[in-house]
Amino acid sequence: MSIAISPLAPAGFPDMAPIVGVRIATGNSGGRYRGRDDVLLIQLDDPCPIAGVFTTSQTAAAPVLWCRKALAGGVARSVVVNAGNANAFTGDAGERLVEATVYAAAQLATRDPSDPVPASQVFVASTGVIGEPMPADMIANALEAVAPKLGPSEGRWESAAKAIMTTDTFAKGASTTCRIGGKTVTISGVAKGSGMIAPNMATMLAFMFTDADVDQAVLQRILTTANDRSFNCITVDGDTSTSDMALLAATRTAGNPPLKTMRDRGVSTLRAAIYRVMEDLAQQIVRDGEGATKFVEITVTGARSTKAARQIAMSIANSPLVKTAIAGEDANWGRIVMAAGKAGVVLDQQKLAVSVGGITIAANGQRVADYNETPVAEHMAGQNIRIGVDLGAGRASGRVWTCDLTYDYIKINADYRS
Amino acid sequence: MSIAISPLAPAGFPDMAPIVGVRIATGNSGGRYRGRDDVLLIQLDDPCPIAGVFTTSQTAAAPVLWCRKALAGGVARSVVVNAGNANAFTGDAGERLVEATVYAAAQLATRDPSDPVPASQVFVASTGVIGEPMPADMIANALEAVAPKLGPSEGRWESAAKAIMTTDTFAKGASTTCRIGGKTVTISGVAKGSGMIAPNMATMLAFMFTDADVDQAVLQRILTTANDRSFNCITVDGDTSTSDMALLAATRTAGNPPLKTMRDRGVSTLRAAIYRVMEDLAQQIVRDGEGATKFVEITVTGARSTKAARQIAMSIANSPLVKTAIAGEDANWGRIVMAAGKAGVVLDQQKLAVSVGGITIAANGQRVADYNETPVAEHMAGQNIRIGVDLGAGRASGRVWTCDLTYDYIKINADYRS
Repeated sequence: MSIAISPLAPAGFPDMAPIVGVRIATGNSGGRYRGRDDVLLIQLDDPCPIAGVFTTSQTAAAPVLWCRKALAGGVARSVVVNAGNANAFTGDAGERLVEATVYAAAQLATRDPSDPVPASQVFVASTGVIGEPMPADMIANALEAVAPKLGPSEGRWESAAKAIMTTDTFAKGASTTCRIGGKTVTISGVAKGSGMIAPNMATMLAFMFTDADVDQAVLQRILTTANDRSFNCITVDGDTSTSDMALLAATRTAGNPPLKTMRDRGVSTLRAAIYRVMEDLAQQIVRDGEGATKFVEITVTGARSTKAARQIAMSIANSPLVKTAIAGEDANWGRIVMAAGKAGVVLDQQKLAVSVGGITIAANGQRVADYNETPVAEHMAGQNIRIGVDLGAGRASGRVWTCDLTYDYIKINADYRS
Repeated sequence: MSIAISPLAPAGFPDMAPIVGVRIATGNSGGRYRGRDDVLLIQLDDPCPIAGVFTTSQTAAAPVLWCRKALAGGVARSVVVNAGNANAFTGDAGERLVEATVYAAAQLATRDPSDPVPASQVFVASTGVIGEPMPADMIANALEAVAPKLGPSEGRWESAAKAIMTTDTFAKGASTTCRIGGKTVTISGVAKGSGMIAPNMATMLAFMFTDADVDQAVLQRILTTANDRSFNCITVDGDTSTSDMALLAATRTAGNPPLKTMRDRGVSTLRAAIYRVMEDLAQQIVRDGEGATKFVEITVTGARSTKAARQIAMSIANSPLVKTAIAGEDANWGRIVMAAGKAGVVLDQQKLAVSVGGITIAANGQRVADYNETPVAEHMAGQNIRIGVDLGAGRASGRVWTCDLTYDYIKINADYRS
């Protein structure tokens, strides 16, 4: 199959800042993917506080179940990711594979045999086909060959992002800095999409690192709240994966005054910077949504609660009829009304207003008298579509990012197993 | 656009039995559709008990709002349907159009000017584009030309079914009989699909008639329960319409002993017959789902409640990844697991079992040891796909009908406004 690079892709992989204390290597597992790396090993020089959010799927994959337990310790030394097989719905065999992987990674991270790295400090993630067993030592064996290649993160983010791709058409990374206590703090992360994207507590895989000196509880709080406004606000196809996971580890090498509580000076700065990276990665995932030709931002205002606003925005974002109308550049705004109406949120249609590209199409429950479709059609012909719905019921709002639904989504998902 | 007749269409329109007391005529409104009839007038010779179920959309169309009120009276003399414009999200103008239509239809149904038919005995339905205003007298004017053509239902069901079509590729009708108290009772109905189908209390339009002598309360109870197992169990695209409506009227001309309470002998027979018609129509709607090439039955067993079983079946039925895998004849059963896992129902994946075409693929949370994909792939190559999921948690079950998601769904909905 040759699906071209998404028309919504950024010009190139960003110039990403290194994080001191993070080492990266990639290799091939001998599995589904040939001629490219499909195993990523990230090793942290010292034990690092780590935060995580995970899929809410009731059929969560074995690596997710492992990471949830490991997160209780809150400390990471290694992250291992493989692409091509999700190790989901694989029963005992899946658990054994996770165990073999984390023990191998822990051993490889141990510098002093008298002070071995515990397996609970290894985080694993897998992405790919669901339900296909793998040999238990497949990833562990691959790690033996990968570990000797470990090197500083500088210049290695792109290969890391590439090694975790499945149907992604471009590698996804984001990086930013902020100043805390006179020191520069850096955040860099990579992520993958690009189908089965409707995160519910997390998204497909995202691995982020900062050199900030920050306690685990603060890091987790920042990740959870930023996640709620970034990865949890995107959808490609409404299908929540078994394997969603976002991890954020802090190497504490920046030299900033330690951030120990949410009230410490600098936390809000760090949170804003982390959010920038997460928003960037979340939008890149949407821009690489399977078959996407349009990036769509849906904003719902005037709601009684953020939850209600988000629910309506998600209903619009997941509506096949809205998504196909956008693909067809058809200003078929009635479908937006339909999707708002079916969202399961009580609303007064007499107060409902709809805009596209900032142009009010309908207000007070009907089309505005002087509606002119021409500027709306012009907006629909562009690559970035903005849809607004106001409920006229309250002051809360919600915003969701999605993409259109095209022939290529069918092509990618009907013709090839992913 | 030329979308061919659905490959899942029945061989032809069924041989439908007439209902004494039902008269039918069709005509053209001068609206969206040229060269075909798009207005349907059904007149009942005498006041008839009528039952109805309607969309739960919060942006329900003006005709739905009218019918909900009219149903309080429980008596019908006329049903008026137009295709091409849903009269949804049309505000005051939409209400005025409904009023003009029902007053005109009431006048046309009045035989004795001293005993005029009340407007509340006219039921109206509209299907088509949402949000586009129509001239208030558009349907009323059309009725003036249609009414003189009214004639007995015999031989007119197909033209009735055709006049209400939008993106449907074939006309949908079903008819059956049963014996009650030594008399033959007939039920005949027509329906339309075929996109924006995810009924929630009703479906896109269905109009059914019986000659049974039955009280309105009994008729409503039968319709509501049968609807729950028929129209409420289908989905094409998960998009709930603003205009869903199913009406069932009884002309009481069969001569059966009157059915006055749910305990009367004959009610269960009538209910079974009505259910047969509704199941038939519901399946026809799925078989004409936009772009459909496969008819899919999803059965979830071993659930703690019918609601939980239905919720998981619907999650599978609405998953774009499951639907595209079926379109591609790919036995990608992991996506079924994913869709079960995201359904919002607590489940124990260690007890989950999955079958396709009656062949068990996974049990106890993993693929069966001796899994052979060949017979599953053969089943997937057929037109009728059966998916089974057992939760191992209880004794309740649920069943949903849907279709696959193909290029033609995109073609129909991206390239043309419907």
